[in-house]
Amino acid sequence: MSDMHAPSSEASAAAVESIKTSTALPVDPPPWPLGFRASSIACGIKKAGTPDLALLTGEGELTAAAVFTRNLVVAAPITRSRACLVSRQGKVRALLINSGCANAATGPEGARRAQQSAECVAAALGCTAESVLSNSTGVIGVQLPVERIEANAPALVHSLEAGSCEPFARAIMTTDTRPKWSSRVLRFRQGGKEHSCRVTGVAKGAGMIHPQMATMIAVITTDADVPCERLNHLLRAAVERSFHRISVDGDTSTNDSVFALASGAAGSVPESELAEAFTAVAKDLAQMVVRDGEGFERGIEVQVRGARTETDALIVARTVAMSLLVRTAVTGGDPNWGRILAAAGRSGVDFDPAHIELRVGGLPLFACGSPGATDRSALREAFMQDTVQILIDLGQGKSSDTFWSCGLTSRYVELNADYTT
Amino acid sequence: MSDMHAPSSEASAAAVESIKTSTALPVDPPPWPLGFRASSIACGIKKAGTPDLALLTGEGELTAAAVFTRNLVVAAPITRSRACLVSRQGKVRALLINSGCANAATGPEGARRAQQSAECVAAALGCTAESVLSNSTGVIGVQLPVERIEANAPALVHSLEAGSCEPFARAIMTTDTRPKWSSRVLRFRQGGKEHSCRVTGVAKGAGMIHPQMATMIAVITTDADVPCERLNHLLRAAVERSFHRISVDGDTSTNDSVFALASGAAGSVPESELAEAFTAVAKDLAQMVVRDGEGFERGIEVQVRGARTETDALIVARTVAMSLLVRTAVTGGDPNWGRILAAAGRSGVDFDPAHIELRVGGLPLFACGSPGATDRSALREAFMQDTVQILIDLGQGKSSDTFWSCGLTSRYVELNADYTT
Repeated sequence: MSDMHAPSSEASAAAVESIKTSTALPVDPPPWPLGFRASSIACGIKKAGTPDLALLTGEGELTAAAVFTRNLVVAAPITRSRACLVSRQGKVRALLINSGCANAATGPEGARRAQQSAECVAAALGCTAESVLSNSTGVIGVQLPVERIEANAPALVHSLEAGSCEPFARAIMTTDTRPKWSSRVLRFRQGGKEHSCRVTGVAKGAGMIHPQMATMIAVITTDADVPCERLNHLLRAAVERSFHRISVDGDTSTNDSVFALASGAAGSVPESELAEAFTAVAKDLAQMVVRDGEGFERGIEVQVRGARTETDALIVARTVAMSLLVRTAVTGGDPNWGRILAAAGRSGVDFDPAHIELRVGGLPLFACGSPGATDRSALREAFMQDTVQILIDLGQGKSSDTFWSCGLTSRYVELNADYTT
Repeated sequence: MSDMHAPSSEASAAAVESIKTSTALPVDPPPWPLGFRASSIACGIKKAGTPDLALLTGEGELTAAAVFTRNLVVAAPITRSRACLVSRQGKVRALLINSGCANAATGPEGARRAQQSAECVAAALGCTAESVLSNSTGVIGVQLPVERIEANAPALVHSLEAGSCEPFARAIMTTDTRPKWSSRVLRFRQGGKEHSCRVTGVAKGAGMIHPQMATMIAVITTDADVPCERLNHLLRAAVERSFHRISVDGDTSTNDSVFALASGAAGSVPESELAEAFTAVAKDLAQMVVRDGEGFERGIEVQVRGARTETDALIVARTVAMSLLVRTAVTGGDPNWGRILAAAGRSGVDFDPAHIELRVGGLPLFACGSPGATDRSALREAFMQDTVQILIDLGQGKSSDTFWSCGLTSRYVELNADYTT
């Protein structure tokens, strides 16, 4: 899944060393980049004494950017963090995340509690509350037990340390079955000297066992020195090709957010390589989120090419990837490819079915308006792969896009239905 | 579910006698209106000798209208029927429907076979082929065994008779567990004499056991004398409030169509009452389709009011009704109402969450930006109803709309996945 390319000629001194984790089996957790300190604690929001409060800080000020949910119904900490980013012009000290409670649909009282939780951490850090970004994930419609955060803020700040991103990645989990991280190291020469910089990201995925929401949260950090505007641009470009190209259930949550934080400790870094590393880490995390989605059994990758515009390509890819009929066919490993054509046909994008070409796992299934004469057992095998590869050529232009989802399984339905109170 | 009102003062001589079937337990099958003849036969397209070919004709010419799938990938008989309606200016002799094969994604050969099947029936009827509308439902990507239709066309025409709509309703079934019909009788005085007119509809629903498609087909007939343009208008208005307001899986099929046929045998009929009866029959059928959807366990009715425009109301209602998270919560009978707010919030319709009001089963759950203090056991009961009633007031206008769907069940996923070849 790596999108790492050989160094371009324009920046031939830079080389990218991939140490990304596998999407299937995480390797050893990578460290945070230089200039970061993190800690986590079990403060009692979640039951069972598992870690549920995580803090990430800079040694000094951090440059910050974020992409937040587009849902009109947003959680209190999102509204708060958005305001902090604006008033602090992207300069912050810390990011506080709790799991076990989403603090969403909680009204003015929820806003007060979100502010209060940032204030107590800010007091322990010795900074202003608006320098502390925050987010919450977990139960919706329930008030945040802020007194537990207050009681634990000093210990949380006291235990901040550099090193592995694992404790933080674990503390933000809700129904994830495993922590998610990815990292890239960039090595390059500048001014005759060897330099390096790191990009490390962690994420929690879309899990929704009662009564939790699919609150996807990701944090991407780097020690590169990046101005705020540039960091914002890097993040948006990376998210566009990763988190905005996946779907487990089509429901945008009230708390979804991706944060980017830069410490600047590693100095300035070649721009295009940094962008590449950001996108690679974001893609890794996005695909881990899909593959740890509830009831996951088999992935779907829909690649659309030959579209008139990039928007057309995205719409067709997304419609096919999210079709319940396509997703159940993939779960059953059933080569019912007519469902793929039917989904493309209802996407709203104008195309001529006589010019469309469909391949699954490389096998030609439909072209020139008629079905191909594909060997049934080979076709069946293509639908049984760990990730079913769907390629649609609309035959009308040069634009393309790719979207990832997964088969819809009985287990998904059970996990989201059978949690009766 | 009846939308029958007392006769309006403008047409006080008209009275509507409802004999509609229950959506849960079909009562005795109603007859076709005057001027219709129907027949059905098992011609061997389906296995197991079940009826798979159905013909509906007029004693003379019928006035016809139709609403077809908006999918760009359309089945051969749809393309053909659309052309027939135009060239015949809405005057036809018959409607031929086969189940067991959708004749979709079958290329030029499929078009030839669709034409051939209409031709052999036209020959037996003694009319032109373009006077015979047709549709198919069943397997996609497989050629229609037209020779079986040819061999059986004379017998099909020979056995045409007036009377019960049941044999026709059964012959068009695919994975439906029961036939679907609904009827209304209008009684009115005109020119000092008692008159009556009937509207009878049949439908097949969205079932998709391998390798069939969700090919919804409905036929609404009347013996009222209605000009083509008016019939077209009646049908579109009825479909807008019925078949366009339901979803089982969000996938528009390649073969979806609703036909309206009028024999004129009962003479002219008060316009508004006829429109009311059309809409009532269409709503009955649409809800039967949802309630016979694969894996159906519990219905969902989403009513949105207080919207700025009708389009806003529809979008919010549809987004909530189709949300996988809402649908799984309903299946589990779990009062996880935060998912309803989250779905409304991502619908794309602009509203202020502080002014939204949410009720489920009449219970106030969220208002003025905060959750209500609803009794948990009453709430749980509201989510356990046979149809879960969701009411969202956007608090910004006077427009409203209603959308119907059903809980997403494990059985749905199994039916659509576990049909490995």
